[in-house]
Amino acid sequence: MSDTSIDHLLPFLLRRNNVARYENGVVFIGDRRKYPFEKVFVRCPDVECVAHAIEIMVTQGGGPSLAAMYAMVMAARQVDGKAKSEARDYLQKARLRLVNTRPTNTALSLRLAKAMDVVDKAIANGDSIEESLLNWIEKSRDKMYKHYAIKGRLGADLIEDGDGILTMCFAETAFLLCVAMAKQDGKDIRVFTPETRPYLQGARLTAPSVHELGIPVQVIGDNMPAHILSQGKVQKYFTAADLVTLDGHVVNKIGTFQNAIAAHYHGVPYFVFAWGPDREKPDRASVVIEERDPAEMRSCRGAPTTAAEIDAYYPAFDITPPHLVAGVITEHGILSSYDLKRYFA
Amino acid sequence: MSDTSIDHLLPFLLRRNNVARYENGVVFIGDRRKYPFEKVFVRCPDVECVAHAIEIMVTQGGGPSLAAMYAMVMAARQVDGKAKSEARDYLQKARLRLVNTRPTNTALSLRLAKAMDVVDKAIANGDSIEESLLNWIEKSRDKMYKHYAIKGRLGADLIEDGDGILTMCFAETAFLLCVAMAKQDGKDIRVFTPETRPYLQGARLTAPSVHELGIPVQVIGDNMPAHILSQGKVQKYFTAADLVTLDGHVVNKIGTFQNAIAAHYHGVPYFVFAWGPDREKPDRASVVIEERDPAEMRSCRGAPTTAAEIDAYYPAFDITPPHLVAGVITEHGILSSYDLKRYFA
Repeated sequence: MSDTSIDHLLPFLLRRNNVARYENGVVFIGDRRKYPFEKVFVRCPDVECVAHAIEIMVTQGGGPSLAAMYAMVMAARQVDGKAKSEARDYLQKARLRLVNTRPTNTALSLRLAKAMDVVDKAIANGDSIEESLLNWIEKSRDKMYKHYAIKGRLGADLIEDGDGILTMCFAETAFLLCVAMAKQDGKDIRVFTPETRPYLQGARLTAPSVHELGIPVQVIGDNMPAHILSQGKVQKYFTAADLVTLDGHVVNKIGTFQNAIAAHYHGVPYFVFAWGPDREKPDRASVVIEERDPAEMRSCRGAPTTAAEIDAYYPAFDITPPHLVAGVITEHGILSSYDLKRYFA
Repeated sequence: MSDTSIDHLLPFLLRRNNVARYENGVVFIGDRRKYPFEKVFVRCPDVECVAHAIEIMVTQGGGPSLAAMYAMVMAARQVDGKAKSEARDYLQKARLRLVNTRPTNTALSLRLAKAMDVVDKAIANGDSIEESLLNWIEKSRDKMYKHYAIKGRLGADLIEDGDGILTMCFAETAFLLCVAMAKQDGKDIRVFTPETRPYLQGARLTAPSVHELGIPVQVIGDNMPAHILSQGKVQKYFTAADLVTLDGHVVNKIGTFQNAIAAHYHGVPYFVFAWGPDREKPDRASVVIEERDPAEMRSCRGAPTTAAEIDAYYPAFDITPPHLVAGVITEHGILSSYDLKRYFA
């Protein structure tokens, strides 16, 4: 299944060209900070601009990896015609700058390591680095969308007619495909999206995207999942993962963990859409949780939420232990969080 | 201990005259919607104005009861010199209007029932209704502050040197006294206040009040308590209660319940400051949870948080079952949530 065959099932935000794209030496990144109030793109003419855009949360989830891959293509064009060693040094520096943007989600770092392999092969073969990277990105995106379709189907088959579904943050393509397919299968479903402070990804990205698919959705506060669960309104809890460790710990947007505890308390299973574990992350001790500027926790869409002199704390992710995870949904199936090594060692 | 003897321990918001006061036939209510950005009062010349102010959340927690009691005094002055039956009818209507402002917290309804007893006694004795009500309010406030001091002391003695304390919403006088007394006892403590969306009582009211007492405090998102608990930063969880049922269910601001689940999961005890159970509320089935306008969940301090066409859901309170409650702190001591009837039957 090529990615275009699922594009029609996806909402605006997740359509191929709206995440990030490369056009004539420039990277355009869909600005998720402004959605749904504005549908605009940040135009980046150099690597530093892309790195900064990732740092200031222009995009999130799978967006940073894609934007960073296109930044490498842009850098490759910028060194076109230069000596091989100079070109490689420049691209190596670009990679490091991009890797250092976000410490928790290691997918970006893994993808960029692969990009450097492509660069080295192109240099060795005397091929165009820009073309080689573009071809590689195209192929990996096709594979990625094929896996999204597999995961969406696995998730959709878990959903029963009448289910209420809790999610957190913006679980992106696999999750949106999952609910789109469940609806296509004739299942009557309803989604609850905690707003996900401070950036409101649940309220701004997930809720409008689910609504666009014609599925009933309600925004709730991040303080409400347990209450909604206690009312019997939720039968499944699904999120994406920024990182899964080899021993099955799920690292995702802050709040995912307490929803998982509340779901477990109420007997509701928690499923995670993931690419698989990060082989370099054996356990929770190996995970670095990004702590962002406390000032981001003291305002909401520009309006201050407390007095300026008050301290705040903003860890951006949390870690859910494997015993709270009912299954990790990958292209290999719905795996036990205790059995990931067998498929991804 | 008279209330003035603890006034110096309290932050601005909770000082006697800043909650609500009666001056020459007019009720002034401290506007907690605008704090800490502005320190202003809403001036109410009639009962309807007070009722509306309570409905639109000018005040909360213990504020509505006090504002409503003063509204009865104001109504009494307005019928001064009228025939007894006419005066009583007018006051009865005022009481009903005020009771209907908020369905969950029944303290207001209980206090106003007592106010009518005072009215009836004054009418029977030919006393001034206004004076009788004012005297009764003064006496009940003195008793209330005596009980606050007892509860604050009980809470302070639970706290150990070095404790991190989680709270939710604005737990008001007993909680603030508790941390003020723990500090006075030389204990080094730190408070975490979830912001409490959508009205941000934690960020706007609790954090500045704790900060005013010179105690380190950090605002966190409502999605962060479980993560903070997992870091070992929290040793006690304290909240107030809008209502406690006779069988020990705690009704409080939405989010209290999921924090209690997360605290229990991490082995951290949850203590509730309460006036005691409501004798008319035997169990959770008897509790009415106020569901407020979903529009309130779609904005934050006036800024929209999602697209206008997106649905939202805003239950304002949740219910924590007694097995998650380590103790209910009342003037009779730290009671088991399973043993409240013995003290308050």
